[in-house]
Amino acid sequence: MMGNVAAIIGGGVIGGGWAARFLLNGWDVRVFDPDPEAERKIGEVLANARRSLPGLGDVALPPEGTLTFHADMAEAVAGAAWVQESVPERLDIKQKVYTALMECADEGAVIGSSTSGFKPSELQEGLSRPGQVVVTHPFNPVYLLPVIELVTTAANDQAMADKAMATLRAIGMEPVHIKKEIDAHVADRLLEAVWREALWLVKDEIATTEEIDNIMRYGFGLRWAQMGLFETYRVAGGEAGMKHFMAQFGPCLSWPWTKLMDVPEFTDELVDLIAGQSDAQSGHKTIRELERERDGNLVGILRALKAQGNAAGKLISDRDQTRLAGAGIASTMAEIKDPAQPVLTVKRAVPLDWLDYNGHMNESRYLECFSAATDRMMHILGCTPDYIANGGSYFTAETHLRHLNEAHAGAPIEVHTRILSGGGKKMLLWHEMTCQGELVATGETMQIHVSLETRRASEPSDEIAENIETFVTAQAVLGTPEWAGKAIGQR
Amino acid sequence: MMGNVAAIIGGGVIGGGWAARFLLNGWDVRVFDPDPEAERKIGEVLANARRSLPGLGDVALPPEGTLTFHADMAEAVAGAAWVQESVPERLDIKQKVYTALMECADEGAVIGSSTSGFKPSELQEGLSRPGQVVVTHPFNPVYLLPVIELVTTAANDQAMADKAMATLRAIGMEPVHIKKEIDAHVADRLLEAVWREALWLVKDEIATTEEIDNIMRYGFGLRWAQMGLFETYRVAGGEAGMKHFMAQFGPCLSWPWTKLMDVPEFTDELVDLIAGQSDAQSGHKTIRELERERDGNLVGILRALKAQGNAAGKLISDRDQTRLAGAGIASTMAEIKDPAQPVLTVKRAVPLDWLDYNGHMNESRYLECFSAATDRMMHILGCTPDYIANGGSYFTAETHLRHLNEAHAGAPIEVHTRILSGGGKKMLLWHEMTCQGELVATGETMQIHVSLETRRASEPSDEIAENIETFVTAQAVLGTPEWAGKAIGQR
Repeated sequence: MMGNVAAIIGGGVIGGGWAARFLLNGWDVRVFDPDPEAERKIGEVLANARRSLPGLGDVALPPEGTLTFHADMAEAVAGAAWVQESVPERLDIKQKVYTALMECADEGAVIGSSTSGFKPSELQEGLSRPGQVVVTHPFNPVYLLPVIELVTTAANDQAMADKAMATLRAIGMEPVHIKKEIDAHVADRLLEAVWREALWLVKDEIATTEEIDNIMRYGFGLRWAQMGLFETYRVAGGEAGMKHFMAQFGPCLSWPWTKLMDVPEFTDELVDLIAGQSDAQSGHKTIRELERERDGNLVGILRALKAQGNAAGKLISDRDQTRLAGAGIASTMAEIKDPAQPVLTVKRAVPLDWLDYNGHMNESRYLECFSAATDRMMHILGCTPDYIANGGSYFTAETHLRHLNEAHAGAPIEVHTRILSGGGKKMLLWHEMTCQGELVATGETMQIHVSLETRRASEPSDEIAENIETFVTAQAVLGTPEWAGKAIGQR
Repeated sequence: MMGNVAAIIGGGVIGGGWAARFLLNGWDVRVFDPDPEAERKIGEVLANARRSLPGLGDVALPPEGTLTFHADMAEAVAGAAWVQESVPERLDIKQKVYTALMECADEGAVIGSSTSGFKPSELQEGLSRPGQVVVTHPFNPVYLLPVIELVTTAANDQAMADKAMATLRAIGMEPVHIKKEIDAHVADRLLEAVWREALWLVKDEIATTEEIDNIMRYGFGLRWAQMGLFETYRVAGGEAGMKHFMAQFGPCLSWPWTKLMDVPEFTDELVDLIAGQSDAQSGHKTIRELERERDGNLVGILRALKAQGNAAGKLISDRDQTRLAGAGIASTMAEIKDPAQPVLTVKRAVPLDWLDYNGHMNESRYLECFSAATDRMMHILGCTPDYIANGGSYFTAETHLRHLNEAHAGAPIEVHTRILSGGGKKMLLWHEMTCQGELVATGETMQIHVSLETRRASEPSDEIAENIETFVTAQAVLGTPEWAGKAIGQR
């Protein structure tokens, strides 16, 4: 289908990211880059993109398009509906490319430039069809970050801007249309302000690069990832609103804080302009609503980073480890006082990111919680991270969940775990989840010991086998739980 | 226990955030604030904190401490191990508080100031025990964001700094110790540089507050939330490293991009200083490792925001909706061509954030996927968001999962769903998950129609009941799946 061809002029990290975006959204992609390394470089970006982009949404992407490399720019560009230029950031090089593109690109094609600095009018200058050329400035990694600065001039008609926006949205991107061109558009102005001030901080030996990064990723970076600058400050201003915030913060601007001194005059007009825009942006939500939205976002982001074991999430994991014993949760057999009793394997509060549209803990989070209980039990038995690194682990074969009560945000929940049977490769666990003494759910789960090399069932270590036997024998006095060994609906 | 008392001098959003941090981590908290609204204001911050902080980690916090309000500062402060000052940002007011604190605070107490602008030496000036006073600058919301700028002077000995850091870590915060004081420390220098430039952009009518926020939260804000500034640029520099990146980006600094013009001279020494610090920070990881870490973080953050329905995550959800039909997924009964066939309810790739330490899709994510399949089936039957908003929904009573094969990152998976039985309040669903034609897992689940008002079982609408009947009748020809109606381990 001729409409679904994109030509990538200039590979590298940015061009490769564009290639991945188009390709994984079903477009055929033709690359022109004289660099003999271009194919390898784009291949590496594409490998990262194939790993991360297709699962980002909850609906499968269309089948991948076809990727081809071309030694001739005209061949790459002929018939393409989108031409994306990502050559080095030198105006003379870019202008040469655009002059050549006027000869070979379809007249209806959108020609986008990845430039972070040049104005579109500088790229359009002297071209026979300047209306085809727009700035579409992406952010690395291009295959994951959605935002595009779309910058146009009077030479671009609205139909061209609309077409560019529709195509960008179709490949999962979100254009912000900047209608008044300036050097470096919007984002790189903000980025450069931070970069300059950060260079001063390092040069003056106030903080190291790592300290500055930590202050960002453990602090205001988490705010900007979900609300940006102005909405964050609107919430900080509280019920008194954006004008109040600006009245408080405004005077600091004339203090000699930063090394960067040119300051817009703080007139009533400027305050009204900003407060008015902020009202238009967020005025339909109360500050309380915005606070709850912000907190939900922050909890979600922090717990996502925790699951990855990185950044601010790692701080939380590390601290959890130090708090296990204080919460009464054992880590080793030596800490088990009475093996005849069910083992406390989880003691926690229901986090905000476990809720669903019914306003209670989603069914899959019950299993996430029981899965954590299984992990804790494995650790106690001797199936520790070291053991797993040496090639043994447990995989879940079957699970039967019963939901008896709802659990809401912040509810204190505990899981107690029994081993109903064991021996050889199998281990049958019984989890009971309670909230303030009331039974909320049960989980019966058959675990199989595996070799991580063969991915097949295998015998556990003697230590693990003995520990399982200790629990099974001691807990036999508890009898079989009434609901164990039953099918769905079986009483 | 005397050691676990914190005194909060000055309530409001910041003081209230500190009160919540200490209280929810088991400390007794005493508040001194002459504002008659202080109790209400702190109560509101505390309500937000109780909703979001306890579930942030995976281990329960200790029981809450006791919160009291005091009309007398000496009474609030006596015996407190930590005194946190968050009064208005005026040096004369702060100095008056510190002079008074010298009279009533324990000699061993840490006295921390929330000031974002003043140097600790300005607060310590003229005090009898200046060594007790440090800057501990937090970020709103204080109960969720971990970072603290701890700023000390020569008047503070190492033992005081160590004690402050240990206490902050014990309440889940992460101090960055800044040993060379400057106005506004580190974070607010960066924040002010951005704020000033953003004011120019709005004033010059280049972009609105909302456009600037979107450029941040759909773009570089997502990078800064997990890597900060320098590590992000290190990755952007690629294999050639930080020096290469600086060589590329350095020259822009002398271009007239920003309105903020004072620029550090770009000497070899500055390049070496920054490249050396960046090596010390991240040099133990290759660029490929950093890229994969970054992508895992970004996917996690984006999908967390998607689950909240906000910011960049909402872009993904909205786009998913437009792609359902193209992926062959029905939304209504009218789109069901043959009700005798199992219904395609999920078609997607396994996302990075569904993996666990065994390198494959975690068991709870199988249920997340089946839960999405149930939601899709509900929608087709007529249990839509509108129907749910009117008070009816389905809750899961029981689920039986069988895991037959592993699924790895990016794997294309599909779920087909049957209705095995229905009628009245009950609906028994049968989900089969396949990956490229191979059966990966089955899920049998009993759904109960409920009234969201009473939270009890209730009859579905006639439309839903009829649609269920249509599927059950038509699919009877398929027979009962071999594994349905069985208990764990039953063949």
